[in-house]
Amino acid sequence: MTRITQLQQAMDDVDAVVLRLAENILLATGYWLQIGGLGLVVIPHEGAPTLVVPDYEQEEAAIRWGGAIETFPIIRFDAGPAGAAIERILRGIASELGVRGGRIGFEGSFETIGLPTFTGEASAVAAPTQALIRATFETERLVDVTAMLESVRLVKTDEEITRIRLTNEIAGLGLDAFKENAVHGRTEAEAAAAVDAAIVSGGHGYKGARVVRSYATVWSGPETENGWQYFRHRARRIESNDVVMLELGTVVDGFWADHTRTVVAGRATERQHEAFAAVMAGIDAAFTASRGGAVAGGVDAASRAACQELGFTQFPHHTGHGLGFRYHEARPQLVPDSEHELLDGMIVAVEPGIYDAELGGIRWEDDAVVTPTGAERLVVSGYALD
Amino acid sequence: MTRITQLQQAMDDVDAVVLRLAENILLATGYWLQIGGLGLVVIPHEGAPTLVVPDYEQEEAAIRWGGAIETFPIIRFDAGPAGAAIERILRGIASELGVRGGRIGFEGSFETIGLPTFTGEASAVAAPTQALIRATFETERLVDVTAMLESVRLVKTDEEITRIRLTNEIAGLGLDAFKENAVHGRTEAEAAAAVDAAIVSGGHGYKGARVVRSYATVWSGPETENGWQYFRHRARRIESNDVVMLELGTVVDGFWADHTRTVVAGRATERQHEAFAAVMAGIDAAFTASRGGAVAGGVDAASRAACQELGFTQFPHHTGHGLGFRYHEARPQLVPDSEHELLDGMIVAVEPGIYDAELGGIRWEDDAVVTPTGAERLVVSGYALD
Repeated sequence: MTRITQLQQAMDDVDAVVLRLAENILLATGYWLQIGGLGLVVIPHEGAPTLVVPDYEQEEAAIRWGGAIETFPIIRFDAGPAGAAIERILRGIASELGVRGGRIGFEGSFETIGLPTFTGEASAVAAPTQALIRATFETERLVDVTAMLESVRLVKTDEEITRIRLTNEIAGLGLDAFKENAVHGRTEAEAAAAVDAAIVSGGHGYKGARVVRSYATVWSGPETENGWQYFRHRARRIESNDVVMLELGTVVDGFWADHTRTVVAGRATERQHEAFAAVMAGIDAAFTASRGGAVAGGVDAASRAACQELGFTQFPHHTGHGLGFRYHEARPQLVPDSEHELLDGMIVAVEPGIYDAELGGIRWEDDAVVTPTGAERLVVSGYALD
Repeated sequence: MTRITQLQQAMDDVDAVVLRLAENILLATGYWLQIGGLGLVVIPHEGAPTLVVPDYEQEEAAIRWGGAIETFPIIRFDAGPAGAAIERILRGIASELGVRGGRIGFEGSFETIGLPTFTGEASAVAAPTQALIRATFETERLVDVTAMLESVRLVKTDEEITRIRLTNEIAGLGLDAFKENAVHGRTEAEAAAAVDAAIVSGGHGYKGARVVRSYATVWSGPETENGWQYFRHRARRIESNDVVMLELGTVVDGFWADHTRTVVAGRATERQHEAFAAVMAGIDAAFTASRGGAVAGGVDAASRAACQELGFTQFPHHTGHGLGFRYHEARPQLVPDSEHELLDGMIVAVEPGIYDAELGGIRWEDDAVVTPTGAERLVVSGYALD
């Protein structure tokens, strides 16, 4: 239970933490919650943590989490209200741990939130969860432990890296489908749907993957000049020789990958090939520079210099970012002058882009794990611009 | 600007509200935000509201929202930090409205959260947004206006109903695709992917729809006996005569639909047909009872009685719920003894289910708008059990 030990060592000013967000329950237990809000984990500063989930979820949770599990009934109302059951369980845990009236940590500043397996609605921590903790732990001493959680998750364990690698491998099914579908006559929406379908259809059951979700968006044509913005697919049909961009988030059992691909639906121009080569050089340089101990601003600079050397200027958006427990983690930020230190075992996404009216938008993004000799790429899919 | 007037009338104890969640910005302005957290609306008790969005989003926002818009740069860091720009804009608005130091409303108790068009990460309101309001409105008097917002959105406007009807129509593309794909040999994941693909591919551009998202999950076989639980598709292949269930959320430009379908991949048994008829009778009875002025507990009872009359007992989960701005709204709850009053213009989803080892799970769900003579169904897709 390495993660639990790490969390306990990092929470020296609180008596226990109550984690309710899927990404933090995943961090603590390795288990990806089904419905947000309907599960939580209590970790005492000293002693054994308890995962609390709906009764029908116990079997699946126990596959990942070997510690204590308490359950409550939900959805069916012949078993009494779930809220009252959760309160009863938390009161029992607080009492057993001897932390009533103590300092209790909670997720007070998570405004960007990763989703559980049920993705149609998100579940956040706001006033109701704070009231729940106050009532059941009989305390007014709530402590926001957001920064602590973000620090602990920065470096991934070997098992987490294995799982993020699997997500990258499954994402590859969608990256290949994009290449096949980014063709003249297909709409952007159809191409995006084909990417998602390839990942969802092929991902479930792939090397033991249980729950797979895919978030593809596709943009095409002259407006990719503004592809540095958030974009989303339309009913627009891809025309011959259009630039086509894919932005793709993939999550497998809670662990994320983040990719971008750009292709030309036909024949790329000479200058587009040159820009594509500059983007690739930027990624290679960033990964080479991403050694344990390196500073994030230096990684950003390495990418921009490599791009510049081939005659192009990277767009002034970030070169990359950390990820794994979420599509985007807050640290490290690969941006100019960033002082974040890279550490072995961090996962970074690198995504340099070049955008102008003549080229359209050309961006490519892969994920890699930081090692002492540079970052090792996790993705298996690569192909030419046209 | 009916919605703004309603909100202003309902906020008599605050000087202004700051709304940051996509579903509430949608309520106030009709516009569905692109990226959560990167937009907000300020509504004063008296005076004109202002929508604040990224600069590149202004054009799209202005299609829906005729009021004032202020913008800030984002993503590109050659234009200065977005956070500082947002703070500057809010300070300006606070000053112009003369509400500095006043009572400012915020979304303090939204733990279940609807997503913006970017669905890979959610954005919530927690400590950082509260700090932002404190700093820019120079006040410690923050007021949680969650209950007020939930009340105002209960009854939908004619335009909102039109938009929810469109979502239902687009959802129908997926409901039909489910029927075609819930067949022997297809995996649950493949069937779910086909539903999503039909909605995303066919929905964009359909009668002006701009952004369409689909959340299908499929379950099949003997385990549908537990289909009242949250379920999610697996790599399991559908076998001949399997029961196959679809749970589907669809969102079009921010407005939601919620459907369930059950089919048998082959020939249903006589008793399955009877149970299916009982579920249908439950839905019809619930919709017939859903008149303006009716009490939600009575609607629930009507559904259960109709089902009982045909020899079956509805499972003790809710008969239905409100929706529209989110997949599930907090009110009305169609459950036994619910005292929520139905009002003309509310949208309700009704989803009675029967589950047992012999039948598997049989549930069906449609959405309807409450009128003086009962609820009018919004969905166009219907088909037989086998």
